[in-house]
Amino acid sequence: MAEKSPNNNTAGKPIRCRAAIARIPGEPLVIEEVLVAAPKPREVRIKIICTSVCPVDVTFWRSEHPPAIFPRILGHEAVGVVESVGEGVHEVVEGDTVIPIFLPDCGECTDCLSAKSNLCSKLSFSISPWIGREETSRFTDINGETLYHFLFVSSFSEYTVVDIAHVTKIDPQTPPDRACLFTCGVAAGLGAAFKRANVEAGTSVAIFGLGAIGLAVAEGARLCGAKKIIGVDVNPDKFEIGKKFGVTDFVNSRNCGDKPVSEIIIEMTDGGADYCFECVGSTTLVHEAYASCRKAWGKTVVMGAEPGAMLTFKSYEVLDKGKTLMGALFGGLKPKSDIPILIKRYMNKELQLDEFVTHEVNFNDINKAFGLLLEGKSLRCVIWMNK
Amino acid sequence: MAEKSPNNNTAGKPIRCRAAIARIPGEPLVIEEVLVAAPKPREVRIKIICTSVCPVDVTFWRSEHPPAIFPRILGHEAVGVVESVGEGVHEVVEGDTVIPIFLPDCGECTDCLSAKSNLCSKLSFSISPWIGREETSRFTDINGETLYHFLFVSSFSEYTVVDIAHVTKIDPQTPPDRACLFTCGVAAGLGAAFKRANVEAGTSVAIFGLGAIGLAVAEGARLCGAKKIIGVDVNPDKFEIGKKFGVTDFVNSRNCGDKPVSEIIIEMTDGGADYCFECVGSTTLVHEAYASCRKAWGKTVVMGAEPGAMLTFKSYEVLDKGKTLMGALFGGLKPKSDIPILIKRYMNKELQLDEFVTHEVNFNDINKAFGLLLEGKSLRCVIWMNK
Repeated sequence: MAEKSPNNNTAGKPIRCRAAIARIPGEPLVIEEVLVAAPKPREVRIKIICTSVCPVDVTFWRSEHPPAIFPRILGHEAVGVVESVGEGVHEVVEGDTVIPIFLPDCGECTDCLSAKSNLCSKLSFSISPWIGREETSRFTDINGETLYHFLFVSSFSEYTVVDIAHVTKIDPQTPPDRACLFTCGVAAGLGAAFKRANVEAGTSVAIFGLGAIGLAVAEGARLCGAKKIIGVDVNPDKFEIGKKFGVTDFVNSRNCGDKPVSEIIIEMTDGGADYCFECVGSTTLVHEAYASCRKAWGKTVVMGAEPGAMLTFKSYEVLDKGKTLMGALFGGLKPKSDIPILIKRYMNKELQLDEFVTHEVNFNDINKAFGLLLEGKSLRCVIWMNK
Repeated sequence: MAEKSPNNNTAGKPIRCRAAIARIPGEPLVIEEVLVAAPKPREVRIKIICTSVCPVDVTFWRSEHPPAIFPRILGHEAVGVVESVGEGVHEVVEGDTVIPIFLPDCGECTDCLSAKSNLCSKLSFSISPWIGREETSRFTDINGETLYHFLFVSSFSEYTVVDIAHVTKIDPQTPPDRACLFTCGVAAGLGAAFKRANVEAGTSVAIFGLGAIGLAVAEGARLCGAKKIIGVDVNPDKFEIGKKFGVTDFVNSRNCGDKPVSEIIIEMTDGGADYCFECVGSTTLVHEAYASCRKAWGKTVVMGAEPGAMLTFKSYEVLDKGKTLMGALFGGLKPKSDIPILIKRYMNKELQLDEFVTHEVNFNDINKAFGLLLEGKSLRCVIWMNK
């Protein structure tokens, strides 16, 4: 799949190419010609092969409040080929197949050197409008106006520039429309089950929210050998979709009457689920997940957050029930070391991810991809830059 | 140390003996003659050798509100010898040296059969005024008035009756004034470090509150090979005491000026302590402990609770920092399987516990033991029933 250094005559110079620009909150993206500057030291310019739309793109496309900012090039789930590299980049070379990942992995700090952390201390994660290490942009429109970056990736462009800390080299044989799944929600869900919670065989799992993250948690839990995988969602169609990824039972949270979901899950699991995953970022659901969790060894994994919200727990319950509560950004996965292993498991047909890609469109139809996600029709819609 | 079945002529009959009764909240205990009924099925009558006073006794001695209740026989840290057993008790026989423990371990339910739980599902833990399985008392005063039980133990009596689920047989060679330390706070602190948090060698630990529980956490962390053990307390004398149990650094939380304790601990540990233990039961301290904890792999262990209080955490921090929060009742220890192992480690001189016993009194002077604890002069005062 990898193209071998097709643009080496462009190295060191700005590239003029097409990008989909978010100019006004909630208005359709506009495909325009943009200038993508050459990579600075420790940066990599990538020719995007394909990209997909994640709900986080939609959130920051619609939002009128900071950290939303305009005009911006959104997109953060993608795969591409290295076009050129800046000074000091030795990890990848022109022609390498890579995935940019929003979470940094500098490879030098205490956290990046530890197997127990995926939270880089050198380059902290934020919704910055800039490229990684300095407050500048590599994008300008044809009028010379600055275009802002998004999640250190900005993949809704034929070319983008990414800090090397955000670049993971992958097997070029990986199908591009699957490779881009390993950059955000799907990988996070798998990681949360495999790595952060470390789901044991024979156990019970409750998943709150069966979007791509929740379904990936199910797939991860299924591979770990979980016996009962309960999906909780307001949309009853999600049970059929969930079955493809290992969901064995379903709770329609709109159909529970006066009974809290936690009570139903406690009944279904004879005391509470061994693992509960909150995959929506809803405070109410975190509380429900924690309440649904088995005393003593139960783990509740928080995979989303609500800006400004507080999580509250009864002091006595925290002590007496002995449950564990843990956060999992990107499922606890380390981009450069864990992702290539997950891709290998996909290539070995252990991981079942094909069903995540429900739609494909050409770059010209990028607004259709947004529409499909907004209408709840797609899990992931892959956008081909040049097909 | 064990006396061999000295009262086998009393089996099956009530025993008249002395007990210290809490009749009025906060008023001195009164030593009176009481009747201790014969053990019913699955119960054990124990002749107490010695007992110690724990802050929980003081709390329920002073409190005027339920679950405080009067007249009551307090006391729950003790060692004794089995005087007689009720029907169906095969685990211990007359003359065995035993420690009663407030936490049940029925040996039959899912939790008691699992190595991962110490929270019995059959006999739940509560501040009940009764003996374990039925709502009755085995104590009456000489006027025939019912005296209430405390924490399923009631050790401030020469004889007490305890459900077999609350009885752990121990090595009779264990010095009695050390054996009683393994029944509550000291064991809980050791367990929280060893078992619940599973402290790794070379790590940093912050302990909020250097009472007996906190000091035992330090001793446990020291044995696990922790490198930096930071004690946090309002009493500066606690640093010298703490050093005996492995405390290497001290923060006087009254001397921090405007700086939150967490900021100081983050500075001292270059990013946050790997493990934080809240040993007081203060909501503010749980929040401070969580804030002091290292991102990614940091664990905060909650060892106390404030009735009616809520713990609150920022939703984004729970996700982005990836910390773990866990409750630890009795340090996660299983009374019947873990305690004999800890006692063995004490007998092998691995565990340093002697310094916990700061005072000893005769049963007649039990109110002195309360006074010493109230004045902050004692860690544990051992009360000998017959010395």
